[in-house]
Amino acid sequence: MPWPITWDDVVAARARLAPHLPRTPLRHYPALDAELGGDVRVLVKHDNHLPTNAFKARNGLALLTALDADARRRGVVAATRGNHGAGLAWAGRLLGVPVTICVPHGNSPEKNLAIRGLGAELIEAGADYDAAVEAATRLVADRGLTMAHSTNDPAVIAGAATITAEILEQVTEPPLDGRLDAIVVAVGGGSQAVGALTAVRARRPDVAVYAVQAAGAPAIHDAWHAGRPLTRDRADTFADGLATRQTYALTFEALREGLADFITVDEDELAAAVRRLIRTTHNLAEGAGAAGLAGLTRLRDRLAGQTVAIILSGSNIDEPTLRRVLG
Amino acid sequence: MPWPITWDDVVAARARLAPHLPRTPLRHYPALDAELGGDVRVLVKHDNHLPTNAFKARNGLALLTALDADARRRGVVAATRGNHGAGLAWAGRLLGVPVTICVPHGNSPEKNLAIRGLGAELIEAGADYDAAVEAATRLVADRGLTMAHSTNDPAVIAGAATITAEILEQVTEPPLDGRLDAIVVAVGGGSQAVGALTAVRARRPDVAVYAVQAAGAPAIHDAWHAGRPLTRDRADTFADGLATRQTYALTFEALREGLADFITVDEDELAAAVRRLIRTTHNLAEGAGAAGLAGLTRLRDRLAGQTVAIILSGSNIDEPTLRRVLG
Repeated sequence: MPWPITWDDVVAARARLAPHLPRTPLRHYPALDAELGGDVRVLVKHDNHLPTNAFKARNGLALLTALDADARRRGVVAATRGNHGAGLAWAGRLLGVPVTICVPHGNSPEKNLAIRGLGAELIEAGADYDAAVEAATRLVADRGLTMAHSTNDPAVIAGAATITAEILEQVTEPPLDGRLDAIVVAVGGGSQAVGALTAVRARRPDVAVYAVQAAGAPAIHDAWHAGRPLTRDRADTFADGLATRQTYALTFEALREGLADFITVDEDELAAAVRRLIRTTHNLAEGAGAAGLAGLTRLRDRLAGQTVAIILSGSNIDEPTLRRVLG
Repeated sequence: MPWPITWDDVVAARARLAPHLPRTPLRHYPALDAELGGDVRVLVKHDNHLPTNAFKARNGLALLTALDADARRRGVVAATRGNHGAGLAWAGRLLGVPVTICVPHGNSPEKNLAIRGLGAELIEAGADYDAAVEAATRLVADRGLTMAHSTNDPAVIAGAATITAEILEQVTEPPLDGRLDAIVVAVGGGSQAVGALTAVRARRPDVAVYAVQAAGAPAIHDAWHAGRPLTRDRADTFADGLATRQTYALTFEALREGLADFITVDEDELAAAVRRLIRTTHNLAEGAGAAGLAGLTRLRDRLAGQTVAIILSGSNIDEPTLRRVLG
């Protein structure tokens, strides 16, 4: 399978996003370096500053701006429980594209309110995520909506690639000095990671990309090491952005080809990373948003002496989970 | 006493800040409106996104860029325990201006590390804040440094006024609709509040500005209601950005003249506002950063039917305090 997107796709996505999404900051926190032992220089990419507090705003906007006028007029539908739905709803409101989000009954009321607050139509359907997918699929047929997949869409991956495209620019600007040796990226579906690989292959092939999943939701990690796609029955992690049970067609081969390594971290390591980001950067992080730091912490001996970027990809942690994480 | 700064000063400060500080977002969270009962439309100004996670980056940069070349070369000194020092240090590194920060012995090691990490010289001197002020004053004499006051400087107030100047622009841009009836502003020394008053007087005199202090540190609130400057012995609040014990010459008369009202909130109300911001916006807030929301919550019946802006002015809350606030 050919590489899913080109560098030109990333440049085009940046141009489509630029009028609406300023670059997010890339910051260096000496206190964070010190907590990791002082041998790694960590740069934090603040995608938690985006509208909807998550990098999914990039993906949603990249997806909707890639549609033709007719598809935009009809609108899109997605099955999701969280950040993907909010990112689409935000982008849809911005562009006047109707967005329908299917969630299972019992979905977080906070998340439902956030999606509705952004003007999307929210449909509660079925008992679980798979039932919500079925409901969304019916709407594609019944209403002529476009299915907006969270990962399996070249425009989505190009949107996520703009994170690393920005990082590669920002490391060359004062007070930074051009140094960058590695990026540690969390994998839910793989858009951030394949986006990062696409950007570094084109612009900085010397930069290594490492991937991280939760040990309780290791489908893509296990598949990467096994060398073939696979599905797992369960995805148990408080980092709901990482709770995937399968590989995705558009990202798996690129992950296989490009990653320097793929590791897992357990729930305690994810929680420790959330606490560490709060303590040293004073930014909130959800579990998936802290997974890059958790992975870096695990890899710190291998990365000693290096400058390493992580992506604080989202801060949508609910209050009870945060209270539990803080202990 | 004449008004301490003009609208032209604010415009000039914006021009000096613009190359280095993009506008911070102004966002509407329906979930936050709903928690307040649904009668007030709340707009949140995200100064927690600034470098150093606090609006003091504006103040520090406005102050340093207002110095002449000779003063910049010699450098500045300040006595501070927190955000003011970090804001100056950040701006000093950006502009190549030497910054010296005097803190008392026993100051938070996290805050000291953050200030040193930004390249400032940190001097630990004396047992309390007043002793740190004495040390800073000696450096003005001995080294020819400029004293950088956290409030009593027209450039600082003009820097803080850029917050409201941005808000007044942003309410006119989609998805907002021009509506703005009031701003509720926390008062430490008063730079944010006098900045807000300066901006609304010039551009939107229909907008009311309300001020908030902590009930445990009510010096300026009490003075406002008494009609004369005064000093208090104590300033007890976990919102350290509000822990001032006196009125300031450059802000007090303007507060007297311009504010619609001045209220206090207790520690429980501040803590509840931190939790509410986390729950509804998924952004971290320090006590002072949540004080605008705490004040708005207290005022919500008076502000029913209105659109009200609050400033999430900083997120530098330490982990033990956050754990206590979350309960």
